[in-house]
Formats: sequence, C-alpha cells, structure tokens
Amino acid sequence: MNKTTPPATRQKGTPWSTPAQLLTDVPLPAAAILETPLAHNLAWMQRFADDHGAKLAPHGKTTMAPALFQRQLEAGAWGITLATAVQTVAAHAHGIARVLMVNQLVGRPNMALVADAIEAGLEYYCVVDGADNVRDLGAFFAARNLTLNVLVELGIDGGRCGCRDAEQVDALVAAIAAEPALALVGIEGYEGMIGGDDEIAAVRAYGERLVDTVKTLRASGALQREAPIVTASGSKWFDLIAEAFDKAELREHYTPVLRPGCYVVHDHKLYAGAMEAIKARDPALEGELEPALEVFAHVQSLPEPGLAIIALGKRDIGHEPDLPLPLRLYRRHDDDTSAPVDVRSWRATKIMDQHVFLEIPDSAEVAVGDVIAFGTSHPCLTFDKWRRMLLVDERLAVKEVIETCF
Amino acid sequence: MNKTTPPATRQKGTPWSTPAQLLTDVPLPAAAILETPLAHNLAWMQRFADDHGAKLAPHGKTTMAPALFQRQLEAGAWGITLATAVQTVAAHAHGIARVLMVNQLVGRPNMALVADAIEAGLEYYCVVDGADNVRDLGAFFAARNLTLNVLVELGIDGGRCGCRDAEQVDALVAAIAAEPALALVGIEGYEGMIGGDDEIAAVRAYGERLVDTVKTLRASGALQREAPIVTASGSKWFDLIAEAFDKAELREHYTPVLRPGCYVVHDHKLYAGAMEAIKARDPALEGELEPALEVFAHVQSLPEPGLAIIALGKRDIGHEPDLPLPLRLYRRHDDDTSAPVDVRSWRATKIMDQHVFLEIPDSAEVAVGDVIAFGTSHPCLTFDKWRRMLLVDERLAVKEVIETCF
Repeated sequence: MNKTTPPATRQKGTPWSTPAQLLTDVPLPAAAILETPLAHNLAWMQRFADDHGAKLAPHGKTTMAPALFQRQLEAGAWGITLATAVQTVAAHAHGIARVLMVNQLVGRPNMALVADAIEAGLEYYCVVDGADNVRDLGAFFAARNLTLNVLVELGIDGGRCGCRDAEQVDALVAAIAAEPALALVGIEGYEGMIGGDDEIAAVRAYGERLVDTVKTLRASGALQREAPIVTASGSKWFDLIAEAFDKAELREHYTPVLRPGCYVVHDHKLYAGAMEAIKARDPALEGELEPALEVFAHVQSLPEPGLAIIALGKRDIGHEPDLPLPLRLYRRHDDDTSAPVDVRSWRATKIMDQHVFLEIPDSAEVAVGDVIAFGTSHPCLTFDKWRRMLLVDERLAVKEVIETCF
Repeated sequence: MNKTTPPATRQKGTPWSTPAQLLTDVPLPAAAILETPLAHNLAWMQRFADDHGAKLAPHGKTTMAPALFQRQLEAGAWGITLATAVQTVAAHAHGIARVLMVNQLVGRPNMALVADAIEAGLEYYCVVDGADNVRDLGAFFAARNLTLNVLVELGIDGGRCGCRDAEQVDALVAAIAAEPALALVGIEGYEGMIGGDDEIAAVRAYGERLVDTVKTLRASGALQREAPIVTASGSKWFDLIAEAFDKAELREHYTPVLRPGCYVVHDHKLYAGAMEAIKARDPALEGELEPALEVFAHVQSLPEPGLAIIALGKRDIGHEPDLPLPLRLYRRHDDDTSAPVDVRSWRATKIMDQHVFLEIPDSAEVAVGDVIAFGTSHPCLTFDKWRRMLLVDERLAVKEVIETCF
C-alpha cells in the first residue's frame, strides 16, 4: 500500500506497489497473471509457430498490455495483431513497431490516427473487403503522400467480414490496383466463424482456400510484397491453420502468419477444451498451454447455508461463455499460501455487477474474508476489466504491475 | 485530433479534444452522453426524492464518473453510493465528501484504504450482515483509533447479502454494540433481488419491513445517530421504496435515503420499461427519465445482402440483457446531422469482442463508413468499457470529456 499514490490514479487496480503479497497487501478483487505458466505459454506458442514454418503475430486485443506484447516479441513474435485504429496507436505509442490490423480501417479520424503512426515509423497492415473502403483509403493516404499496406480479407458465407468468393476477390483486387496509395501485400482470413457438423474439415478447407488464393494472386502479379502474407487463426484451431500453411512453397516464398491471442494466458475451460482437442488431433505434440490468469476475491457474505456471496462481479471478471470458476480457497488467517483448499467442486450460479453467487456445500468451512482464486472461460473479457494487473510468482508475491491500455 | 497527445495516454477514448464534432473529428467507436436529457434526469430524480421527503445518494458504480458525481451533488444529492473500497477512495480522491458503501467492508487492505480516507475527512458508511465481519472491523478501526459508521443490512430469503430475520438482526446489533469502534447508525436493504408472481407487493412489504426495523432499533436505543438512516432502492422500483419511506415520522426523525444509479443516463429498453411501469403506478407523476447514453460506431463491412458488420463489440458497449439497439444512421458524406435515418427497426443478432452483426433490410441504403448511434439496455456495463466519454449537445458537438475511474 502506498499512501502517497497521487489522487488522480486512485482507480481499480491501482493502490498497491511492489514488493507486495497478493493475499495480505492488495485490495481485492485483483487480477493476477501467473509468472511461470505465462513464460511457458510464450515459449510454447512461439515454438509451435516456428515448427510449422510460420510467423507469429499474437492478437493483442486479448490483453492490450504492452508489457505482454513486449514479452511476445522477445519470445520471437513477428508483430502484434490488433482490431482497431485506437488499439494500433496505443500499441505503437508503447514501442510496437509492426501491427497487423485485421479489420477494415474506416472513418477519417481513424485513418488519421494510423497515418500519423505510419509517418512516425509504424509498419502497418490492414485488411479490405469492399471497393468503397478501398477508394476511401486510396484517396486519404494519397492525400497524405503515404503508402498503405492492405490484405484482401477472405470470408465465408454466413460469416463475418470478407469476400465470399473469387469473383468478389477479383473485383476487389482491381479496385486496389486503381489506387496508387495502396499496396496489396497478401490475404487474410478468420476461421473462427466456421461452425456446423463437419467444422474441422471446413476449417481445413478454408485454410487451403487461403493458400490457393494467395498463390493465384501472386501468380497474377497482383501482390506487391516479395514474400506475400497469408494469415489466419484464432485460439481454437490454430493447429489446423498451421497445418494448411505448413508447405515448403509457403516457407520459401511467402510469409505465413498465425495470430492466436488467448494462448498467452490460456484459460480454465473454453480454450482448455480446445487444447484437449488439439492434442487429440496430434498426440505427438509436446507439452500444452497452461492457464495463467486468475482473479482473487473475498468471500463477502455468508447469508444462508449453502450460499457464499463473493466480492467479484461483471466489473471484475468475464462471465461468458461460463461463469467464473472457483479454484482454490485461502483461509483469511492463514499466511501459509502453500496449502489452499481445492474448491473446484463449488459452483457459481449467478453474477451481478459487483457480486458472484457461489453454491457451496452446507458443511463447507468458509468465513467472510477468506479469499478465493477464480479461473475464467475465455480470457479476453477479463483483461478489459482492469487498468492494472499483477504478475505474481508461485508464492503470490507481486513481481510486476502490468498496465493495460484499453 | 491532437497529434501532441502524450503517447502514454493513447488509449481508447483518448485521442480527441474539445471543441470537436462527434461525427467528423472523433475516432469511433465513442460513447456519448447527451447533455440535455442528462440535465433533465439529474433534476427529475432529485425532485422525485425531494417530493417524497427522501435524500438521494445515487449509486455511483453505474458511471464511476466523478464529473457526473459532482453534477448529482450540485443537483442536491446527499452523497454518493458505492460498492467497493476502491470505488470509495477513487470518489473521495475526486472530491466526494460523503460515501454510502452498500457492501460489507472486507479484507485488511480494503479497510486500510477506507481508514485512510476517513482520516482525510471522508464521511463514510458501510453495511454489515455478519458477526465475523463486525469483529474484524471493530478490531481494525479500534487499532486505527477511528469510528466506523455501519448500517445493518436487511436481506431476503434466497436473496443476496443481509440478515434474513429479526433474530439475526438482534444478534448482529449485539455484536456491533460490543465493538466500541463501530457506530450503528441505521439500516440498509436492496429490493432488487425480489422476484416472483407478486413482486410489487413483495417490494412494498420489504420497504415496510425496513421502516419497521429501523423504528424498532431506534426505540431500543441501538442507533447512535440523531436521525438514523434507512436506505434502499435500485433503479427499477425506487417509487415503491420512496412510497414506503414517505411518512411524517421518517421525514422528521430519520434520514431516508434513495439510491438509484442508472437514472442519470437511463436507457432505451430495460429501464425504459421500468419507467413505463412507474408511470402506470402513478399516472399523476410529472415527466419521466430520458435516455442519455449512446454509442456511435461505423458500419465496418457489408459482406452479404441483409447483413451489416458494425465496428462495435463487447469491448465497447453492454450487451445484457439485450444486444445493442440501433437508433439512427448518419450518412458518411452528410455533414448535416439534423436528419439522420431512423433505424430502430434494424436488429443486432450477435455481438463479439469487436463486432456487432446487424440484420438490415436487403434494400437498406447503407455504406461502409456510415455511422450508427446505438442505445443500450442497462447502462452500467457500457460505462465500464470507457476511460473517457463525450458529453455532446444536440448537434453532436463535444462539450466536455467525461473521465471514468473504474
């Protein structure tokens, strides 16, 4: 606790300093990133990409934490993927030199933000999927005397953004060619929208379609990059995309880019399940991602047998697709953190803005002031609840304060 | 746009300045608070409380915006209600002198934050519902040589926190009396957990139970405040609680406190419906709350007939209990903001972290770069997505940048 913290910074996640111990010194709730699995995940995913001859551009929207971006780059990442112009300039302002923005850049104020960053040295790529946007970008960046790198976005029927078929791709490529300020340097897709009965086969086919399309475009002379970019992959099927991209021709003449985001802290359910499926598809795969994000909160009230109200809510932790997952309980008067109680059988039944309802055994030994560590299902929507998160070691000592820039 | 904005502050909602025009100068998405309905709501709710002889302590967790807290106090509010210790110190650091924290204060670091604020002059109240917490608080504040004002929380069976019956209240009052550092000054409840077939009657009965309990405690000499506090009310049934509190005896000898939070910007569906019900219960009620919060976002992609992808996601706007509600469309090349297109018949069908899927008529005249203003159902979970929001006038000129301190 630092009583001299300037008033203007008294915000959630602020009033602590290092060195501190999470359970005794930090106002809870607090979001913790576990040092050891974090380091493991950073190395694991980089090695996975390396092994498949692909570059890694982790999706930074997951964390929006420049200190984690830097660790991803130090581990070998090619760049950082982002979703918006404001995310892009936030990352660039924190020293990120190469950003792949996997959305259309829309609106003059957003274009101006990006143009400023490019002028200041940012290597930037965005995607396009429609002629209107191509003309807008062409006019804007020509007026700024800048070249904008664009990738054609390839979508799927019933999906999100992106060209649905080869005809649309051709028309888009022609529109790009008509704009001297735009450089077409590759293609982009996102397989995460694929569903249905045979989704694995559909993802594989989509990966092949991306590869075929970038080859066709390269052969036609439409691509203005020595090693054109072909990129896809969220956090669920990155193995299938890596497999589709893992070809001698791509390794030699292209820049295949994978961009999972959630891997950096993984999770306790949604992506834990995806990891099991990945291992089932490749039993020889060494190691696996490990959960590295937990939110610590107090037992707030014990109003009835079988019910604990936790001082944790939608303002503090993601709750989709699953409610927060209780993991371990630390007794309030027990300074020995080596033996918390396993409470994975307890179950959150409801979440409100500032409270979680936890169904517990009638016989549970629990007191107001006990601390419970919660895991999540899908980490993205926990990160954006915090301005500052805590990097902790295995004894829950705070090693570093990680700032987010949402 | 201010190119000299320091890098460290390049975060969502930052890169703009006043004067600016929302549609042409601001990187979207952006959250806007409409000046005129905001001012109307501030005055309307204060008058409602005044008319019922109650004080108003708006729940500040809705906005966590000190500039709005100040406007609420200037309109006549008695204090600000908050949910956590960190919220409390954030508000106090921004000049809020009286805070009603409607949760138990749990955990030594949280107690220390509050003790520091009390020492620095904060008038602070929190609630208690269990003897363990009472003992913890008694010991902590005695050691700090401070008096802590507490209110007994009265709950309901199957509800959230709070004593379930008179027996529990009596035991709690005895525990408080045994702690010289604690001053019992009133009782608190929250009717928002009430449900079932006859919820209106149940809310009324709960209001009466609160009144009866505070009277009983006062008669017993347990209360250490000249005009003991009795407080309840969220944003849905504040009229029923106000009615229960609106008694000559309470006006004279007590401090009845209402604490709705969402009213300040109201909403377009959930609380709009609650307002209709309030008007139906009291047809003579003058005026009503008006929606004052909108989020503006670009049409990002038009990949298929009947589908618009919007550059707006879970990171930008609340999506519970209803997906974002499209209101008006502003054409990209049309600087005249006086005649936007009514798109309330369009419908969001899905939201992801950074995208909304909008079902639109096949014949809709719409282009990438058009701007759509969205309303929300329940405002709280939109505020916490933004570090800075824009106060705008009727022509969408930015009048003030409103900072949040989540």
